[in-house]
Amino acid sequence: MSERIWTAGLVVIGDEILSGRTQDANIANSAKWLNVQGVRLAEVRIVADLMDQIVSAVNALRSAHDYVFTTGGIGPTHDDITVDAVAQAFGVPVVIHPRARAILADYYESRGGLNEGRLRMARVPKGAELIENATSGAPGIRMGNVFVLAGVPRIALNMMDALSGTLEGGRPMLSHTIGCSVAESEVAELLLKVERAHEGCQIGSYPFFRDGGVGANFVIRSTDPHQLNLCATALMEGLKAHGWHPVDGGI
Amino acid sequence: MSERIWTAGLVVIGDEILSGRTQDANIANSAKWLNVQGVRLAEVRIVADLMDQIVSAVNALRSAHDYVFTTGGIGPTHDDITVDAVAQAFGVPVVIHPRARAILADYYESRGGLNEGRLRMARVPKGAELIENATSGAPGIRMGNVFVLAGVPRIALNMMDALSGTLEGGRPMLSHTIGCSVAESEVAELLLKVERAHEGCQIGSYPFFRDGGVGANFVIRSTDPHQLNLCATALMEGLKAHGWHPVDGGI
Repeated sequence: MSERIWTAGLVVIGDEILSGRTQDANIANSAKWLNVQGVRLAEVRIVADLMDQIVSAVNALRSAHDYVFTTGGIGPTHDDITVDAVAQAFGVPVVIHPRARAILADYYESRGGLNEGRLRMARVPKGAELIENATSGAPGIRMGNVFVLAGVPRIALNMMDALSGTLEGGRPMLSHTIGCSVAESEVAELLLKVERAHEGCQIGSYPFFRDGGVGANFVIRSTDPHQLNLCATALMEGLKAHGWHPVDGGI
Repeated sequence: MSERIWTAGLVVIGDEILSGRTQDANIANSAKWLNVQGVRLAEVRIVADLMDQIVSAVNALRSAHDYVFTTGGIGPTHDDITVDAVAQAFGVPVVIHPRARAILADYYESRGGLNEGRLRMARVPKGAELIENATSGAPGIRMGNVFVLAGVPRIALNMMDALSGTLEGGRPMLSHTIGCSVAESEVAELLLKVERAHEGCQIGSYPFFRDGGVGANFVIRSTDPHQLNLCATALMEGLKAHGWHPVDGGI
């Protein structure tokens, strides 16, 4: 049974991530949210606040995937160039979106009014739609299959909420974790054997070193709950048969 | 004054990051470590455990940057294909490295001995050198300008330690942070003006929403300590002149 898999790419725009100053949270947040929408995050590129890098990442990912998300670079300051880059990627001019301007005028009415920097946040690639958010005035932007979200994780999550249920996707990816105090090198063959015996299931092995001992969590992923369950049972049984003590749910 | 800037790309290999299961730590760790080596992390790609994706990311980044680092996918299990991918990127076969085999044989002597999975970790692209690490037996690999590191952050850090001082680089990037309880949209023009007046300095603006209020940290970056200092002083003075209360060091 062949299943249509929907994939997304993510472009994280931000010198602050590349400098190591800020720990990114948008990758994990969007990965989890996309999964619930039935879309798989397939590739991420983190680029600097540079026009060429953003344009080429957006163009590479929008032709390779069903959806592209960007985070960061949509604020009011001079280093916020994501809108210009997405417009360039699509070959369209940047225009002021009347509804975005109205949202911002309303939001800033009691906060000192619109100024040049704030008005920057009403700029969109021509033809784009808005993604509203409740946290701050500035909306996100949808341009074709590209979704331009904020860099601040809380605002980005708000924009994802606003998009929930609007994306066409497939079945959500399910996962089942089994942990075991075993060196993964002891069970490599078993993992491969169990994976091959269960179509549509992948088993990832994630070792850890804790309290002086070694162990690993084995994460089985599938969109088919029945196959997932069979695979998890087979792995539990296989580990026990080798004398190990697996923990269902992971450790 | 034009300065040679050394750049690196990072390829993070791992379904567990793309699924949102694991919060990546290697990006921030390597960014900080590279900075101390005088090398700037310029681009990151996170790809799945898929041969084609890894090969094309490694090839794209190794031609664009002085150095490429990879993290993940060098363990003993069937989903660990980074070595094969790097070999394919360089067009060379995979061979057993005698020194890696000896290290692993030694390490596993008291841990059940070598087996097929463990011996996988002695495989390298033909012509590669080893990067030793003290945490686990398995070494990292250097192939041309590509450095293949472990996915487990503690082991990856160990391998970086082993490489400290061995990379040719430029002057480390310095930074100075100034925080202020101000909407960044109020000071966008000031930031641009101050940045333009100080050659070789970039100012990034990172807003936050905290305790119901807004604020931002402004991070000035330069490799020139004198220019950095002048720029920071000008920004502090500029913020004060507008009636704001900047905090040197950030908030």
